[in-house]
Amino acid sequence: MDSEITRNRTAHVSLTIRREDQAPLRHGEVCVQQTKHKFLFGTAAFDIVALANGEYSGQKKEATQQRAEKLGALFNAATLPFYWARFEPQRGKPMTRQLTNAARWCVDHGISVKGHPLCWHTLTADWLLSMNTAEILRAQTERIRRDVTDARGLIDMWDVINEAVIMPVFDKYDNGITRLCREIGRIPLVKAMFSAARAANPSAILLINDFDVSPAYDILVEGCLEAGIQIDVIGIQSHMHQGYWGIEKTLKVLDQFSRFHLPIHFTETTLVSGQLMPPEFLDLNDYKVREWPTTPEGEDRQAREAIQYYATLFSQPLVEGITWWDIADGGWLNAPGGLLRRDGSNKPAYDELMKLIKGEWWVVPTKLTTDENGRIDFTAFLGDYELTVGHIRKPFSVRQPGESAISLCL
Amino acid sequence: MDSEITRNRTAHVSLTIRREDQAPLRHGEVCVQQTKHKFLFGTAAFDIVALANGEYSGQKKEATQQRAEKLGALFNAATLPFYWARFEPQRGKPMTRQLTNAARWCVDHGISVKGHPLCWHTLTADWLLSMNTAEILRAQTERIRRDVTDARGLIDMWDVINEAVIMPVFDKYDNGITRLCREIGRIPLVKAMFSAARAANPSAILLINDFDVSPAYDILVEGCLEAGIQIDVIGIQSHMHQGYWGIEKTLKVLDQFSRFHLPIHFTETTLVSGQLMPPEFLDLNDYKVREWPTTPEGEDRQAREAIQYYATLFSQPLVEGITWWDIADGGWLNAPGGLLRRDGSNKPAYDELMKLIKGEWWVVPTKLTTDENGRIDFTAFLGDYELTVGHIRKPFSVRQPGESAISLCL
Repeated sequence: MDSEITRNRTAHVSLTIRREDQAPLRHGEVCVQQTKHKFLFGTAAFDIVALANGEYSGQKKEATQQRAEKLGALFNAATLPFYWARFEPQRGKPMTRQLTNAARWCVDHGISVKGHPLCWHTLTADWLLSMNTAEILRAQTERIRRDVTDARGLIDMWDVINEAVIMPVFDKYDNGITRLCREIGRIPLVKAMFSAARAANPSAILLINDFDVSPAYDILVEGCLEAGIQIDVIGIQSHMHQGYWGIEKTLKVLDQFSRFHLPIHFTETTLVSGQLMPPEFLDLNDYKVREWPTTPEGEDRQAREAIQYYATLFSQPLVEGITWWDIADGGWLNAPGGLLRRDGSNKPAYDELMKLIKGEWWVVPTKLTTDENGRIDFTAFLGDYELTVGHIRKPFSVRQPGESAISLCL
Repeated sequence: MDSEITRNRTAHVSLTIRREDQAPLRHGEVCVQQTKHKFLFGTAAFDIVALANGEYSGQKKEATQQRAEKLGALFNAATLPFYWARFEPQRGKPMTRQLTNAARWCVDHGISVKGHPLCWHTLTADWLLSMNTAEILRAQTERIRRDVTDARGLIDMWDVINEAVIMPVFDKYDNGITRLCREIGRIPLVKAMFSAARAANPSAILLINDFDVSPAYDILVEGCLEAGIQIDVIGIQSHMHQGYWGIEKTLKVLDQFSRFHLPIHFTETTLVSGQLMPPEFLDLNDYKVREWPTTPEGEDRQAREAIQYYATLFSQPLVEGITWWDIADGGWLNAPGGLLRRDGSNKPAYDELMKLIKGEWWVVPTKLTTDENGRIDFTAFLGDYELTVGHIRKPFSVRQPGESAISLCL
């Protein structure tokens, strides 16, 4: 695995430094340090919305700020909530301002933002139910056009469609999107949604996302691609409330989608640090508990699993991102799925991921001396860097694995 | 259910009979009788191959002949085996003559034939393994072209591709078709196979067939249709070795595929008359038993289930055929899945299906008297009929439900 990580995630950098007069900086003392990963290490950042909009005060504000700091220390990517039911509970009154503030907070903290999701049957607007399917399609398309346009520049990555595999057969409750999907079919719906998002932001990275990791999703992706839909990234959810997949299943799932040669994001990862959800629950949402405590043994297990899971995926070239779902306990399903406990303290998994993401896989500030040609050589994890020579700071990026020759002028 | 059967499977026929001189046959005594169902009541007729080719003798021949008579008495459709591994074990020496003889036997006995299957990873030719995928595709396409062409006029219905959902992920053993499907994708493979079959016999009825009744198959069909593949009939297997689906699941499966508004065949139906296969076997082929006896209680259950299953499907307008798989016990998986016992005697299910197919849903020879306009009125199950007036016999067909006005000249 380590050799795969070296091959797929690092570059051997030859950095030539020239002085302002273009002469090589011979035998100079310099410092290089990584400032950002190219790989997207993300998390759902839902309570950034309230924080960025000043909705909290007192202890709650302090606790949220502390979580946000821990988020920013570990992660470089965040998923913000655009669930239609909550984003626009009353038609025509979307929470655009609030989400824009949250996205700006993220960007200001060096965190890339993804909006999630633009089209999903769950948590869709209930006011769609009074429309016919043609009107639903128009409203859904218009919603995408509006929200993707409004966020352009701050949010340039979107989960365009969520869980299309079960969308038309979803039978928990009636909703406009299931009706629409059932009538026009999954592929035409995916096509319409991608087309609306693409038109609103041609340079956005657009994902299809699903929890289904059976051939059904594989076939849906194939069908979409055959129908000419330009999917930028395949999103795979991995909520492992019922137990860690292990390396074998993780690689098998990945293998199934690798034949498309498209980037893959693991968009929603959960590993719980308490008891596992019993296997008989086919829909995770059916498991309702008042209390689901984190336990010392569970936290040790979660940490071990998180290390292995991240290392497995980080070693695979097509994977470009992993999003840990709830950063703190008590989120979705009230599960102990956080990296932080309810009181905001770190679980071992947080510390272990920190050791990887900002340790083993990270170039800490490193002092080097240039040779007679003004060159330094070092191994870089792909991402953004900063060179410091005296009081001068120069940013540079290392984007591709392998050999990388870079030239910087002070 | 009965009213649905009446609505979808019968016509109210007004038959006007004219004499040779065109005058209405007034107050004439006539007899009408059904000679064939439009609906395809079929079965796998694999041992017709040996029978039609004179490969059996003595008691075995007699037993096979007896089974064949019972087949012809109940069914109007048969599935003949074109498993590539058996059809062409040595490249270039296909069993074309044998299968042609079998198909002719069927047609001579008023039985429509379907060839099964043209492309399947299981039982494919093992000599594909020495080829690269381009060569496999060429060989598979050429095989379809040859066999569909050779059988034209005798076999005009084909299971073109079988079990494409698992085809690229099938991992029981290496085979050329899984390799090919994995490399080019399911939809391009389905497209190539349908295209080859269509070119060889433009008027053939071409099926896609699968045992998978999850959204994966639904999505595959959608993907194929979106990619412009002309699927004539959706084939659904229903090997219920682990227990009868019941009306609810049967209708749910059907409902999933009804949105395509394409005809549906239940292509491979099994209901066992012995103990059920334990539910933990995900692949039915993994259940290996030396003995799997039919039992009196099992036979009663099988008969009850068969009645309900056939009545359920016969009532649904998109369903155009049901194929009972093994007509006699001891076929696939050594299961008691026959309508006949090993000794060739009828199980209750055979007799009960006979009561439906050639009884309740059938117009037995019926004497009627024409009115003063030479007209008789009767309710007909869709299919072929014969009118007898004295020694004159005139065939006619009733193809559409509802009102049907037919005119015959003696």
